[in-house]
Amino acid sequence: MKLIDTAGLAAAAAQFARERDWDKYHSPKNLAMALSVEAAELVEIFQWSTEAESRAVMQSDEADHVRQELADITIYLVQLCTVMKVDLNAAVEAKIEMNARKYPRPSV
Amino acid sequence: MKLIDTAGLAAAAAQFARERDWDKYHSPKNLAMALSVEAAELVEIFQWSTEAESRAVMQSDEADHVRQELADITIYLVQLCTVMKVDLNAAVEAKIEMNARKYPRPSV
Amino acid sequence: MKLIDTAGLAAAAAQFARERDWDKYHSPKNLAMALSVEAAELVEIFQWSTEAESRAVMQSDEADHVRQELADITIYLVQLCTVMKVDLNAAVEAKIEMNARKYPRPSV
Amino acid sequence: MKLIDTAGLAAAAAQFARERDWDKYHSPKNLAMALSVEAAELVEIFQWSTEAESRAVMQSDEADHVRQELADITIYLVQLCTVMKVDLNAAVEAKIEMNARKYPRPSV
Repeated sequence: MKLIDTAGLAAAAAQFARERDWDKYHSPKNLAMALSVEAAELVEIFQWSTEAESRAVMQSDEADHVRQELADITIYLVQLCTVMKVDLNAAVEAKIEMNARKYPRPSV
Repeated sequence: MKLIDTAGLAAAAAQFARERDWDKYHSPKNLAMALSVEAAELVEIFQWSTEAESRAVMQSDEADHVRQELADITIYLVQLCTVMKVDLNAAVEAKIEMNARKYPRPSV
Repeated sequence: MKLIDTAGLAAAAAQFARERDWDKYHSPKNLAMALSVEAAELVEIFQWSTEAESRAVMQSDEADHVRQELADITIYLVQLCTVMKVDLNAAVEAKIEMNARKYPRPSV
Repeated sequence: MKLIDTAGLAAAAAQFARERDWDKYHSPKNLAMALSVEAAELVEIFQWSTEAESRAVMQSDEADHVRQELADITIYLVQLCTVMKVDLNAAVEAKIEMNARKYPRPSV
């Protein structure tokens, strides 16, 4: 089983950009900027909250806002993979293995 | 078909955190900060590049670095969805519909 | 001569926060998040621009927006120095010396 | 009295860039990216800390690191003002007046 499958979104986002003639704006440089801006919009929701308040955000008025920011991050992430021809599932598998070597599971 | 399926990664990341007793750090506030930091590490790769250079990044020495940053962003994104119980596929579907209303396809 | 003098702003921002009882929110963690959000709002102005377009931004409709984002970044930066008791001028002097050692001036 | 005076740093940073022929990289777009990356490096210091821990950061091993990140942010901020010919003191004065109208001082 794959860890993550983004094929459907990759196709939908590519079609969306093509229909609006936006591919010319979608350099890795610009898409990375856009992703970081959306990440900051998510951070903004939590900047004056306590951690406890942040754990209850989906029971607050900000729930829809959170879902929209997560979606925006996801869309730019998948577009970045498309324009750079990155296999995201393979990248994630490799990074998890790297993390497991860097932070070994504590023995009981 | 789903636009995006993250079930495998969600399970793997949850187990990874549980085995290391990291759940206490994984408030939405902290995970959002961590995601934004990884997004900035991706931006850093491109900050002095031209857009044309950024389009060729996967043929450069930075290719592995790019894959690792994309993986880190993805892992934090999926962990955020887990701790906030967000259905990412539904969130992305709703956002794409919203975008389509906001930026209608130009008529030919 | 000092490289940078922020005494007036430090006093004004401290009074502003005190009068509104905001000091409780102004942990270094929260102020750092807020600064990064304002930095992202500046990035957003440029994310789909070419570098040439960005060089002409102050002749565009975004000029006021740019000034406001720069001011917001500056205010949070000075508040961070206040709450952490950092001497910003000394920090900048030390960093410029460090940069000069790291990137020596090319000999002619 | 000025709220903030950056004349010394503006001159020093301009000379530093000129001597290394870096002006060609210093578009507002690129400098804004660089500033946001340094802001994220500051955020990274605090991402797994509690707010209380963050208030004690200058008594920790991270004190020098904090000072360096604050300096980097300041240098890019002042370079941005130079390349865009923004009067930072005037921008900050205007923003503080705007904030005072938006968040009036509570009457006692």
